[in-house]
Amino acid sequence: MRMYDLIEKKKHGKEMSREEIGWMIRGFTCGEIPDYQMSAMLMAICLKGMSDGETTCLTMEMAHSGDVADLSAISGIKVDKHSTGGVGDKTSLVIGPLAASLGVKIAKMSGRGLGHTGGTLDKLESIPGLTTSIDKQRFADIVNETGIAIIGQTGNMVPADKKLYALRDVTATVDSIPLIASSIMSKKLAAGSDAIVLDVKTGSGAFMKTLEDSIALAGSMVSIGTGAGRNCCALITEMDVPLGRAIGNALEVAEAVETLQNRGPEDLTEVCVSLASNMLHMAGKGGIEECRQMALEALADGRGLDVLASMVKAQGGDERYIYDPSLFAPAPYEREVRAPRSGYIDSVDTTGCGIASAMLGAGRATKEDVIDPSAGICLRRKYGDRVSEGDVLAVLYASDPARFDGAERIFLDSYRIGDAPALPKKLIYARVTKDGVERF
Amino acid sequence: MRMYDLIEKKKHGKEMSREEIGWMIRGFTCGEIPDYQMSAMLMAICLKGMSDGETTCLTMEMAHSGDVADLSAISGIKVDKHSTGGVGDKTSLVIGPLAASLGVKIAKMSGRGLGHTGGTLDKLESIPGLTTSIDKQRFADIVNETGIAIIGQTGNMVPADKKLYALRDVTATVDSIPLIASSIMSKKLAAGSDAIVLDVKTGSGAFMKTLEDSIALAGSMVSIGTGAGRNCCALITEMDVPLGRAIGNALEVAEAVETLQNRGPEDLTEVCVSLASNMLHMAGKGGIEECRQMALEALADGRGLDVLASMVKAQGGDERYIYDPSLFAPAPYEREVRAPRSGYIDSVDTTGCGIASAMLGAGRATKEDVIDPSAGICLRRKYGDRVSEGDVLAVLYASDPARFDGAERIFLDSYRIGDAPALPKKLIYARVTKDGVERF
Repeated sequence: MRMYDLIEKKKHGKEMSREEIGWMIRGFTCGEIPDYQMSAMLMAICLKGMSDGETTCLTMEMAHSGDVADLSAISGIKVDKHSTGGVGDKTSLVIGPLAASLGVKIAKMSGRGLGHTGGTLDKLESIPGLTTSIDKQRFADIVNETGIAIIGQTGNMVPADKKLYALRDVTATVDSIPLIASSIMSKKLAAGSDAIVLDVKTGSGAFMKTLEDSIALAGSMVSIGTGAGRNCCALITEMDVPLGRAIGNALEVAEAVETLQNRGPEDLTEVCVSLASNMLHMAGKGGIEECRQMALEALADGRGLDVLASMVKAQGGDERYIYDPSLFAPAPYEREVRAPRSGYIDSVDTTGCGIASAMLGAGRATKEDVIDPSAGICLRRKYGDRVSEGDVLAVLYASDPARFDGAERIFLDSYRIGDAPALPKKLIYARVTKDGVERF
Repeated sequence: MRMYDLIEKKKHGKEMSREEIGWMIRGFTCGEIPDYQMSAMLMAICLKGMSDGETTCLTMEMAHSGDVADLSAISGIKVDKHSTGGVGDKTSLVIGPLAASLGVKIAKMSGRGLGHTGGTLDKLESIPGLTTSIDKQRFADIVNETGIAIIGQTGNMVPADKKLYALRDVTATVDSIPLIASSIMSKKLAAGSDAIVLDVKTGSGAFMKTLEDSIALAGSMVSIGTGAGRNCCALITEMDVPLGRAIGNALEVAEAVETLQNRGPEDLTEVCVSLASNMLHMAGKGGIEECRQMALEALADGRGLDVLASMVKAQGGDERYIYDPSLFAPAPYEREVRAPRSGYIDSVDTTGCGIASAMLGAGRATKEDVIDPSAGICLRRKYGDRVSEGDVLAVLYASDPARFDGAERIFLDSYRIGDAPALPKKLIYARVTKDGVERF
């Protein structure tokens, strides 16, 4: 087999065989196929696509390119959840404990934030003492005890994806549905859970800007997951505006706590209830409506909060912060951002909000940057709200007041205030299962 | 400027500016832009194309990426000719001397053969003593004295093309008209002649397999040449069967000599007369019909042969071989290939003939291989001929009889003998000038 011939084949839009894809991924992972050939292949895939069969083969080969998690030491049905990433997206901190409080097991490996989106590990590590570097045995013990643990990736998992992603990132070959789907799903399959619920964000702050692209990506991922023998479904959720009101690490933990106490923002609560119901449903806990009732009840009696506190304690963190988020050290400086005119907020550039928060110290521009847990943004007014000139739109938090001017400018640029009331937006656009697409 | 953004632009089929193309070629040539980014760009160009303006900018940037020949020491109008490469294509050895005998100057840099096509330098070097490594001053002197010199490339010319071609060759990005046109024309522009005649081969043995692709490539190259201020035209010529009867180095020199003596094969003679007339026409020697008459007269009185002999002598070669090619040491072994059945030869796979000749020792598989000047094939029967079973189709020549079996098998596979007379083929399909396409 020669890589040249495979590139030629894909350039002409032909389908590669399972053997060819396997040979290619193994050769690329071990360094026998050079970057310059793989980048030509990636561009050909971007422009000519891949069939469902090819995408599934690619995903399986990537998933098995390194270590694969063995969750057999954990009893019960393990459910994983993946979000394609957004701004203010703290759903993992809410639905993980919520679903675990209802009897499913969450043995989750999460990532860190880079660029304008935050990472669950960074948010958790704003809790003093908490560690996400935990060995396999202790990981299983914590999940068996408390129902949930969230850790960083261990071992050499999915090295093919690491190499491919690094190459896609510098060759303008990121925005291809088969490549995005195989990258996400290879990691989910290697992580070993029995069922997977995908939260595919759509809108200005998301990877996929249009609903149809988001549905196509979700369809591809659900088809891969199902083909690999996992129960798998996806929700297409709103990311045209930030989710909830808090952007930043400790700020988002505090908002997740409020939400588990059933006094969180409406939009965040609704997205969390929908995702948690689907996790319960995928774990075989009942019909989708029945599961929704279970999630609402758990939210009403606050039992998810105890699960989160137990997990935090088991991971070495101080669980008093969960019961009283006012313990989090506040940022030493804050600045109010005020509405420059009166009117209706009719557009919020989510990416802009994420960049502003990162500029305040809540995010990383490079992998080496250190995160400031107290930095971030608290939104006081959101999409659709009526505001008067001078009203506080948001409060910015930082440890260095020199960060405010740039962040404020970006933040203000991302809010548009118009004269007419804005059209209401849906929170959840569609649900994608192996049986098809249900639009809401 | 970032290469990422340029790749993204081309991936979406957008046009790059002159500044962007210049920045990209300079950065790639000096090694600042890595291969893996350029190969993604090359694949995007293959699949999304380039405008005429982009192709011209690319060519000019490549032409000026290294040394550019200065032919000002040579008096008169310098005309260059380029063939896209074929099997048995010895036209340079005929039309160079023919055109020079009629007053144009040929200051030509040629290449070596690789794969199934032969190179002019290899053919010339089968003449004992002849060298193609000649310095600038001596090169100009020979052209001024004899009207023609054919040498290897000197200095660091068109390094951008060398790097780009090496990358295209391993990333399946060779067959793109803007990339082929810019590669050929950058070298022709850097070589410095005032006028350029292009021989674009079409058919099974050629780079371009269809007439329409060949015309498109010719049109792109003529547009680039004209845009760069050179007189430029192209002929689309037949390469569905080998040109003439000889394939191999000394064998082709001998056939070129016969042709200059006006007793060469009809197809080769006709193609040479057409190309030479266009060279004279591009040099301003008269109307195209007038130039054709001049070429025919020169061929009839054999004056091109004396020019070839003078050039060979000036380049250190033994000119007696030109006046008496029987001096060439014959290959020690020969084998007749016979028709396996009676019928009409209705298809000849030119590439197969070229590969068979290379297997006999006349070509190179790698750049390091040494060529056997005496090896090759002499075709006795060609496309359209009626043959009886057992008739000699060709004679194979080699210095090692072990080479015959493989070469004979490939050669026989490339001849197809059918029951019905084959349709006659044109030798010249079209002429492409800055004013448009004239089909014959």
